[in-house]
Amino acid sequence: MRTIGLGLMGFGTVGTGVVKLLQENRDVLEARLGARLTLKKIADLDIVTPRPVAIEPGLLTRRAEDLIADPDIDIVIELMGGFEPARTLILSALSSGKHVVTANKALLATHGNDIFREAEARGVNIGFEASVGGTIPVVKTLREALGGNHIRSIFAIMNGTSNFILSKMTDEGEPFATVLKQAQALGHAEADPTYDVEGIDTAHKLAIVLSLAYGRRVRLEDIYREGISHLTPQDIDLARELGYRIKLLAIAVEREGGIEARIHPTMIPFNHLLASVNSNFNAFHIIGDAADSVFLYGQGSGMMPTASAVVSDLMDIARDILKGISCRVPSRALHEASMPDIVILPMAELKTNYYFRFSAVDRPGVLSKISGILGQKDISIAAVIQKGRKRDGAVPVVMTTYKAREADVQAALREIDRLDVVMGKTQLCRIEDESL
Amino acid sequence: MRTIGLGLMGFGTVGTGVVKLLQENRDVLEARLGARLTLKKIADLDIVTPRPVAIEPGLLTRRAEDLIADPDIDIVIELMGGFEPARTLILSALSSGKHVVTANKALLATHGNDIFREAEARGVNIGFEASVGGTIPVVKTLREALGGNHIRSIFAIMNGTSNFILSKMTDEGEPFATVLKQAQALGHAEADPTYDVEGIDTAHKLAIVLSLAYGRRVRLEDIYREGISHLTPQDIDLARELGYRIKLLAIAVEREGGIEARIHPTMIPFNHLLASVNSNFNAFHIIGDAADSVFLYGQGSGMMPTASAVVSDLMDIARDILKGISCRVPSRALHEASMPDIVILPMAELKTNYYFRFSAVDRPGVLSKISGILGQKDISIAAVIQKGRKRDGAVPVVMTTYKAREADVQAALREIDRLDVVMGKTQLCRIEDESL
Repeated sequence: MRTIGLGLMGFGTVGTGVVKLLQENRDVLEARLGARLTLKKIADLDIVTPRPVAIEPGLLTRRAEDLIADPDIDIVIELMGGFEPARTLILSALSSGKHVVTANKALLATHGNDIFREAEARGVNIGFEASVGGTIPVVKTLREALGGNHIRSIFAIMNGTSNFILSKMTDEGEPFATVLKQAQALGHAEADPTYDVEGIDTAHKLAIVLSLAYGRRVRLEDIYREGISHLTPQDIDLARELGYRIKLLAIAVEREGGIEARIHPTMIPFNHLLASVNSNFNAFHIIGDAADSVFLYGQGSGMMPTASAVVSDLMDIARDILKGISCRVPSRALHEASMPDIVILPMAELKTNYYFRFSAVDRPGVLSKISGILGQKDISIAAVIQKGRKRDGAVPVVMTTYKAREADVQAALREIDRLDVVMGKTQLCRIEDESL
Repeated sequence: MRTIGLGLMGFGTVGTGVVKLLQENRDVLEARLGARLTLKKIADLDIVTPRPVAIEPGLLTRRAEDLIADPDIDIVIELMGGFEPARTLILSALSSGKHVVTANKALLATHGNDIFREAEARGVNIGFEASVGGTIPVVKTLREALGGNHIRSIFAIMNGTSNFILSKMTDEGEPFATVLKQAQALGHAEADPTYDVEGIDTAHKLAIVLSLAYGRRVRLEDIYREGISHLTPQDIDLARELGYRIKLLAIAVEREGGIEARIHPTMIPFNHLLASVNSNFNAFHIIGDAADSVFLYGQGSGMMPTASAVVSDLMDIARDILKGISCRVPSRALHEASMPDIVILPMAELKTNYYFRFSAVDRPGVLSKISGILGQKDISIAAVIQKGRKRDGAVPVVMTTYKAREADVQAALREIDRLDVVMGKTQLCRIEDESL
């Protein structure tokens, strides 16, 4: 049986999962592949701490460069994360003619252009299924299964930490800070949760997804991004009253002249499939012009689910190697040479539905002042909830709107927040509801 | 730009969709493929009726054999359906060295062994993504994306007609016969709905799914099968009271010694993702040992969604052709030569949870007689609902059970149905609920 040599860079959680999976599922892997995937070397700075998996002595090294120099290694698996030395090592592996599999979304979203161009120039494959949606085959689905479609839109939950926190806030009515601490204790959130809860991780993933869907390069800074740390249990309760759940969504919509690309907490109707995605699960609701709705759901992170995606890339590349070919499918759906930049529409020009929670003084005429300003800015009110219960001397006045322009909404809120009958900053949440 | 020649057999709804998709999405297809997919011939017995798509004159022929003889045709797309002449034509195309794409689940489930063996012997590809789950990339997901996993279980809704009928019965409280007529009027059910509502179509699809998941040949007759025509609005209401929705599920579970494979109406908890799959949508809940839960959802039928799956197969095969290779991935996950038969466990030995609706005479002691028999057969009762409302002189007594053996359940019901205090046949529905 032919052997495909693997080199693993990064022996952390996911790296350990990959080793475990290659060992434990060797039977199905060999039966399906007709070849053996063999780990030749594992590089990690920490060669001391024991991992929950047995490896041959001598496999482990501190020098990642050794893997690139090893002629027995066909595929390098990069699971170190971070920008350096991952970037340099990947580029060096590619230019040495090695195929690469990586889960490094931050790197691909930031330095993808160099990396994918190098892979194509060297005629080697780069697999990155594990970089987005963990175990969910969203790369394969966008690039291959939906290859005959124009992608109309993608609505996705791509950050398990944020979804875990929002789900828990929804179920238990606890504030963000409390739930974040619980998530950290359970290992569902990092000590510094900024990347996850401020939508940065989601932006990296959306950049990758956009390039696959539209065969275009994306500038990360063009994606509008807003996190979940400002959400309150009160907003979650009010959303529920309105028939909505709040999710941190990544949204991509094909529009005339470009693509809408934004990440922010979003109210979606209870009966939307994404509303049922709880805990740390991820999901993608993709609409193709021919396929119609396709919904994919699974574990977005975790040792074995992510390892499963890494191994699916390994199998794909191994199949090419066994047939003596490479680059059967362009990494980012189109050939790098012919790939134009994506045009992302400015957030200010987008139209969507809004939820506002004003902190108003309990006095006659407040509603008319607020709605007057909204009217001047061409913002039509769909619903109003005023419950009259005072909090810190103010009553919450909640409004939802029909489709309005972001720039108009921001201008209106600036004006409203200056009113002497309004106390504190108005809370805003965007709504995606086809019935509005 | 290189051209890949296509021949289409069957110019019905899906065939028309494929032609339309190749025309309308030529831009993305060519950009992603770097080649042109060109229809060389279309064969159909009806060359007169106009289709909602413009084709070059001279493309249409009544002789499907002409496509096989045409040296310009690389891939034959079979969308005629039925056993003959589809089977003979596919085998003939394969033995002429042509790749084949088909959506013909009945044919693959019944004559798959001959067809897949011939394809492998001739070194050509056979694509069948459209045969299961319509637009949902379940073939690709099982065979490639989850290739590193042992598949623990698959729970699926694979028949749009049955799901449409059950959803409408649930939402509107109408009986089966009424909803079937509405579905027929809307084009969601055939004039003879047997294939769909009796689970035959689902069995064909499950046979294909099983072979992909387990790399084994399946005998169709080993799959237990029960349809939806005996379900009543009363059972749907009672299920709702118990916290369940009824769906026609195809179930495959890996067990010691073999695979559990069954198709029947199933009560599942409201919060299960499959409970939210309504109208004519299909969905697959797959559990892999590494990947954990993966859920896929989309249109299981329809002109353009099915065409999207056909075109994804065409692109896959075209990519092999462009690289000068074939058979990169074994059609049924393993090489045909090394493929053993699957062991499907006998239904009588399986254990699951049950719902019974007894039609009991309203008289003291009935409950003790029924529960006595259940107890003798080792069937433990989880819940009882008795509402006392008479229907035709009988009151419905509803029970749910903890895990019980199918053979014991059938024996108990035979005995119970003979009791003089029980009027008419007891209604049985299986429950899948992890909390039971």
